[in-house]
Amino acid sequence: MDFAQAVREGSRLALARLLTHVENDSPEGRQALDALFPYTGKAHFIGVTGAPGTGKSSLVNQLALHLRKQNKLVAILAVDPSSPFTGGAVLGDRVRMRDLSGDAGIFIRSMASRGSLGGLGRSTAAMTQVFDAAGFEIIIVETVGAGQSEVDIARLAHTTLVVEAPGMGDDIQAIKAGILEIADILVINKADRPGVENTERALKNNLELAHPVARVFRHHGQETTLPGGPDPRLNGETSLWIPPIQRTTATDGSGLPELISLIEKHIEHLKTSGDWSRREQSRLTAEFNLLVQETLVSRLHASLPQVAYQDTLQQVFERRASPREAVNNLLTLSSSQ
Amino acid sequence: MDFAQAVREGSRLALARLLTHVENDSPEGRQALDALFPYTGKAHFIGVTGAPGTGKSSLVNQLALHLRKQNKLVAILAVDPSSPFTGGAVLGDRVRMRDLSGDAGIFIRSMASRGSLGGLGRSTAAMTQVFDAAGFEIIIVETVGAGQSEVDIARLAHTTLVVEAPGMGDDIQAIKAGILEIADILVINKADRPGVENTERALKNNLELAHPVARVFRHHGQETTLPGGPDPRLNGETSLWIPPIQRTTATDGSGLPELISLIEKHIEHLKTSGDWSRREQSRLTAEFNLLVQETLVSRLHASLPQVAYQDTLQQVFERRASPREAVNNLLTLSSSQ
Repeated sequence: MDFAQAVREGSRLALARLLTHVENDSPEGRQALDALFPYTGKAHFIGVTGAPGTGKSSLVNQLALHLRKQNKLVAILAVDPSSPFTGGAVLGDRVRMRDLSGDAGIFIRSMASRGSLGGLGRSTAAMTQVFDAAGFEIIIVETVGAGQSEVDIARLAHTTLVVEAPGMGDDIQAIKAGILEIADILVINKADRPGVENTERALKNNLELAHPVARVFRHHGQETTLPGGPDPRLNGETSLWIPPIQRTTATDGSGLPELISLIEKHIEHLKTSGDWSRREQSRLTAEFNLLVQETLVSRLHASLPQVAYQDTLQQVFERRASPREAVNNLLTLSSSQ
Repeated sequence: MDFAQAVREGSRLALARLLTHVENDSPEGRQALDALFPYTGKAHFIGVTGAPGTGKSSLVNQLALHLRKQNKLVAILAVDPSSPFTGGAVLGDRVRMRDLSGDAGIFIRSMASRGSLGGLGRSTAAMTQVFDAAGFEIIIVETVGAGQSEVDIARLAHTTLVVEAPGMGDDIQAIKAGILEIADILVINKADRPGVENTERALKNNLELAHPVARVFRHHGQETTLPGGPDPRLNGETSLWIPPIQRTTATDGSGLPELISLIEKHIEHLKTSGDWSRREQSRLTAEFNLLVQETLVSRLHASLPQVAYQDTLQQVFERRASPREAVNNLLTLSSSQ
């Protein structure tokens, strides 16, 4: 099967099968990725992250439905790097099928990474490239807020949404600094619940710590809510973007139109500031560097006698060589082969 | 200055200066690390992680003070991977100096990683090796609960303490699954606060999801609190350890003696089950693999004309080559030099 061609022609079956190949890093998958790569670079990647219980998946469903009303082709990649025992990915799929099935303009794929947080970034990147080449205009990558995956997603996405919910630790200190740094838009979902004001206040306080300009705005009394756009006093000279806060209620769809216009505003900001291509290039650079590493390491292993690696490591375990000395020994061995 | 020798002879000034060299990955630092490596492998590494506001630092101070009563030499490495603007590391140092200063048996070092979550693991590992070779028996590595650093610390530590506090999101879903998976001991600090029962219940429920044996215990009614030790029904044949939950109040020191005896129980478990050397070897293997990668990549760059890397990357940006094709081009170029 010529996956690349079939996927380009719109076959959903070929798409599903290719995604599996790519996830497994099979030779067919790699070949198709090479063939599809020239057709990538058009889609808008939206990352959505947040703790379990924030209603993140329902929000993503609603977002997809609203984007479909604009006739956008939407792909959802739901990454669940949490424990193998949760089975969250499978359950989530079933619930989603009910909401979104029957619409050929939406494609949903779940990916349950089996405990390997580290390797998540590469297969996610590769799978989004497939969607991109297949002609999907909006690609939503959803991850549970669990450490490295958040950072990976921010590297991958043009626009990162961080989802919070009332009553999940409104204490100002409970909101992680790292999360705010990757957020382009902050969403308070389940906004019909009590405590939404506390959550919003905590987020604003954290934002003011993270973005000094946000504090200036407030102290000058020019704004009581944080501005959702580039600082106007900077005359568009810089790429500064202060993350706006948007309340939503995924169950009845309120706040969704506003969220979508904030996303559009952010795309516009990315394009006028030049950040769009900067993010794109830094993503491709990261992918390239990772592949360089992997290729060099696998060539090294192929060039060495089977026992050499384990023997060298054993020297480290026994403190006969420091890690650095052992690496030098190994590479000398390799070049003398 | 022969750092390695001076550090081995107990010079605190040399130790402080060497830690700076190692943090900066300087040639002097590397050389001293090689010289010190044969003297490593004796210390017990305790990782302490938890969200800001859990009183984690006070708990670490108390833990150090209690361990000093047993005449143990204690080093604390406080890693603050959060934003550069918090200045948390510096402030923390000052507060700590007041509590712990004047005792030559305690050495405290803060490390504010400037935004590079990824590179944290290696310098932390190297700095703990310096403490280990300098004769510190207990090395406490403290990080704020912020993603990758938690995973890194669990890889580094023999015993990982995860610190929670009442009222920081007692909702069962707010406690991250990933955090429970790295915990060897769960600490509820600030246990004199209201809501401590809710926090403990939420932790227990999460533990039962994460560790099926914990559920069996409860359902069989053999235990109402979770057991802090290997499952006795398994006859010591396996390395199963169900994380116990310990309440502490760092301000008055209550719960600290119990926490220390749980830590001792965990060490005993690690040694009898063989997990002690397994953790040690997997840590050294990870460090070794990282060094192999870095060395191969820097040798590749040294072997290429300056422009080759950027030119190849440009082909990817312009979609003239897929990342994989570009990597192959680059390596062919390198071997033809």
